Amino acid sequence: MRAELLSVGTEMLLGQITDTNAAYLARVLADYGVNLFFKQTVGDNTGRIQEAVRLALSRADLVLMTGGLGPTEDDLTVEAVAGALGLPLRSDPAVVAHIRSFFEARRRQAPESVYKQALIPEGARVIPNRRGTAPGVVITPAGATIVIMPGVPAEMKGMVEDFLIPWLRERTGGTVIRSRVLKVTGWGESAVE
Amino acid sequence: MRAELLSVGTEMLLGQITDTNAAYLARVLADYGVNLFFKQTVGDNTGRIQEAVRLALSRADLVLMTGGLGPTEDDLTVEAVAGALGLPLRSDPAVVAHIRSFFEARRRQAPESVYKQALIPEGARVIPNRRGTAPGVVITPAGATIVIMPGVPAEMKGMVEDFLIPWLRERTGGTVIRSRVLKVTGWGESAVE
Repeated sequence: MRAELLSVGTEMLLGQITDTNAAYLARVLADYGVNLFFKQTVGDNTGRIQEAVRLALSRADLVLMTGGLGPTEDDLTVEAVAGALGLPLRSDPAVVAHIRSFFEARRRQAPESVYKQALIPEGARVIPNRRGTAPGVVITPAGATIVIMPGVPAEMKGMVEDFLIPWLRERTGGTVIRSRVLKVTGWGESAVE
Repeated sequence: MRAELLSVGTEMLLGQITDTNAAYLARVLADYGVNLFFKQTVGDNTGRIQEAVRLALSRADLVLMTGGLGPTEDDLTVEAVAGALGLPLRSDPAVVAHIRSFFEARRRQAPESVYKQALIPEGARVIPNRRGTAPGVVITPAGATIVIMPGVPAEMKGMVEDFLIPWLRERTGGTVIRSRVLKVTGWGESAVE
């Protein structure tokens, strides 16, 4: 299996945050023997998200996307991916109910904008978010699989544990990529080689 | 001006290290008003490095590459880029002299493999490395500029200070991208928006 990572968020391209999700996801993939040959980062821009998704689908079976799932106007990921694949968005009643109870449990009024997160591409599977309101989304266009997860590390990791790892375990049957970090004393990579 | 970042190194795609160079370079670009729309990461593989460079050149004027400049067999970046552009490699006498004196100053024997780092694409400019042996390389194919720097953060930052910042200052004439990180108390991005 070949995977590709696609991180979405202008804050990474302004250098305001370091993309630590990528290293975490890369380790998970290596643990299950999945090849990871490319990683892309794009900003919160519909056209560029779509360009990156098309490129990833042209060379990977599994595309793991993070970021741009929030309730604000610059959170475009699901809509952009659905647009690239020609899938209409539908409000998912289970996600609406989750958002409502998430806010009720915290005795807060849910702003109308947060229900945007319940718009799911037709035919997609939802990954519940134990730690927030934005659901994960799994889309399977033409044999490939796209998994879209939040950029908030704790929310993303919850979905990796609940969905991605069981999914990988089913499909990879115990293969792993073994690598070893050699810590040596002495001087210079050339001498070590 | 449009820039693109291209990080090279299988260790990032195995999740062994987090790419902190990317956030640093992104901040430098924002400081000088340079648009950064895409970032790519590839492993130490000639074909994939070349694929990524070609893509970056198709949409950016400035391509900043880091990693894969060392003396070992999996350090392929300069050779791969030269190959993609059809440029022959030539041993650069100034780099050879720098490597020799770098080792002599530390009373070490330079292994033969380290002189591989003196192979520079024809017509390229060298950025001296104050902190190591691998020089930076600047190539200007058809109006674009490719700057190749080491992945070791201290060596890369030295070249940013010595070469990249003066180069950007000359070309951007004081433009900056202003962004602001808002730290708010309260609850939820949707409420803040």
